[in-house]
Amino acid sequence: MKTYSLDQIKSALEGVDLMPLIEEGFVAYSDGRSVVPPVGELVFKNPPGDVHIKYGYIQGDEYYCIKIASGFYNNEKLGLPGGSGMMLLFRQQTGESVCVLHDEAYLTDIRTAVAGAISAKLLAPDNVSAIGVIGTGVQARLQVEHLNGVVACKEVAVWGRTPEKVALYESDMTSKGYTVTVCDSPAIVAQRSNLIVTTTPATEPLLSANDISPGTHITAMGSDTHNKRELDGAILASADLVVADSIPQCRERGEIAWCLREGSVSEIDLVELGNVISGKVPGRTSSGQITVADLTGVAVQDIQIATVVYKSLDN
Amino acid sequence: MKTYSLDQIKSALEGVDLMPLIEEGFVAYSDGRSVVPPVGELVFKNPPGDVHIKYGYIQGDEYYCIKIASGFYNNEKLGLPGGSGMMLLFRQQTGESVCVLHDEAYLTDIRTAVAGAISAKLLAPDNVSAIGVIGTGVQARLQVEHLNGVVACKEVAVWGRTPEKVALYESDMTSKGYTVTVCDSPAIVAQRSNLIVTTTPATEPLLSANDISPGTHITAMGSDTHNKRELDGAILASADLVVADSIPQCRERGEIAWCLREGSVSEIDLVELGNVISGKVPGRTSSGQITVADLTGVAVQDIQIATVVYKSLDN
Repeated sequence: MKTYSLDQIKSALEGVDLMPLIEEGFVAYSDGRSVVPPVGELVFKNPPGDVHIKYGYIQGDEYYCIKIASGFYNNEKLGLPGGSGMMLLFRQQTGESVCVLHDEAYLTDIRTAVAGAISAKLLAPDNVSAIGVIGTGVQARLQVEHLNGVVACKEVAVWGRTPEKVALYESDMTSKGYTVTVCDSPAIVAQRSNLIVTTTPATEPLLSANDISPGTHITAMGSDTHNKRELDGAILASADLVVADSIPQCRERGEIAWCLREGSVSEIDLVELGNVISGKVPGRTSSGQITVADLTGVAVQDIQIATVVYKSLDN
Repeated sequence: MKTYSLDQIKSALEGVDLMPLIEEGFVAYSDGRSVVPPVGELVFKNPPGDVHIKYGYIQGDEYYCIKIASGFYNNEKLGLPGGSGMMLLFRQQTGESVCVLHDEAYLTDIRTAVAGAISAKLLAPDNVSAIGVIGTGVQARLQVEHLNGVVACKEVAVWGRTPEKVALYESDMTSKGYTVTVCDSPAIVAQRSNLIVTTTPATEPLLSANDISPGTHITAMGSDTHNKRELDGAILASADLVVADSIPQCRERGEIAWCLREGSVSEIDLVELGNVISGKVPGRTSSGQITVADLTGVAVQDIQIATVVYKSLDN
């Protein structure tokens, strides 16, 4: 069994085109060619943290994958990164362990941003006026950066709770070539943009239906648990298309789970991302539609990124 | 993050008295001082295999543990061990990864055998005439060896499906100082012994109620999934005491799950191992009782063994 460090993992990803690989993963998932059990979850109260174990395999692949990723919300005060974790590969034929990718949650960050880019490719309007970003953390950066090549727009409208973090976000993203407008509220972000990415761990809606203009796409990727929520149910209820990365997972977690519990959305109205990628179901069909992609993070993303990293490292 | 090999792990266990540690784990579990989510399970059909992810923490401990253990049933034909896996420790305060114990399922084997010894200590009759063993694999050996110090008896009555494996078992255990009697059927094993350990991956009962004499204790540790089963429901229905290592897990897997589904046992009649260890519930109270311990394997066992191994290695 081999163990690889974060530096090795980062260098292995250089030059790899992840988007088609992650797309293949979602298609395999929606086609029923993968085995993905329910997410394992371990919750800590003091200090607060949660650990997700995502695992599974694509039939006919060489490996199966177990991914562990944690978020501990007080780590920042200790000068530690909030996220930790690793991805493990094992042989499907024998169960033998193959490698530990000690990615410290980096690969989870990347595959999450790639899923956002895939969603935008399929669902964003043709002419993105500005990318609206709710939140100022790792995904607030990565989601925007991974839109490169998908969306030509370099205008970013951002809102965050903490002024210091907003200022740091503005300077970081400006130095990367984006024109950043800081907004006083999530509603103003929505007014100024027609591709919105929500990236917070909020547990109450930050955007309401009135905030959203026709022709907007929202990628909601912050809420990945039972209790997190960024969008009011009326947004999904009035949207022309609501896409789940995994319908079974979205029954239990994320924006869609809230709407199903409240009755504002029915499961029959949901579309799965892999089916939009494969063309079985149309994505955006007109410029005035409102579309929402609810991303909770699916093990097929981990399987695909871990496998390509290991193949690159093992060469 | 440190990675330790099987050889290092084996040497770290030398001189460690595991029984009180594993007992503490079961008591913490039954006292509600642990967080143990449902077992994660990944099933493979071709070739057949299953992977169990057991994970959780004891409140107030330094670490949480994620254990991965697989069994692939065709590995033997390939000259590979059937079991693989590792145990991972992370800090409860921050989520940081601490170590990978690449135990190749060894620690699972050991903590399983220790749970059998704990069950026998609490439930076996005072005078064990012979240890009855159903099966000839790793646990058929380890369960007997771990009774050393708990049960004075060195007489073993064994049954197995495959004559070559039975012969190997007989010679191995004879060389370790046991007197081994090979039996033609599980029923004959039961006739010759009053402490029986069932260690097979059977999916149909191997022992029926008529086979079991008064004053017998049975540790059923082979069945740890929804479909595995070694004991007829009438054995548990007529037993004086049925002990589950974890009542929530035994609702879903093992002998008790079959009996609950069939209605031959009610949950109200079950006792949890940690409560017998702590003395909250009596174990065997008379020599004529029939007792059954159904062991499905609980994450607290993994937490306890992984923690002591790491503390020993990190010294």
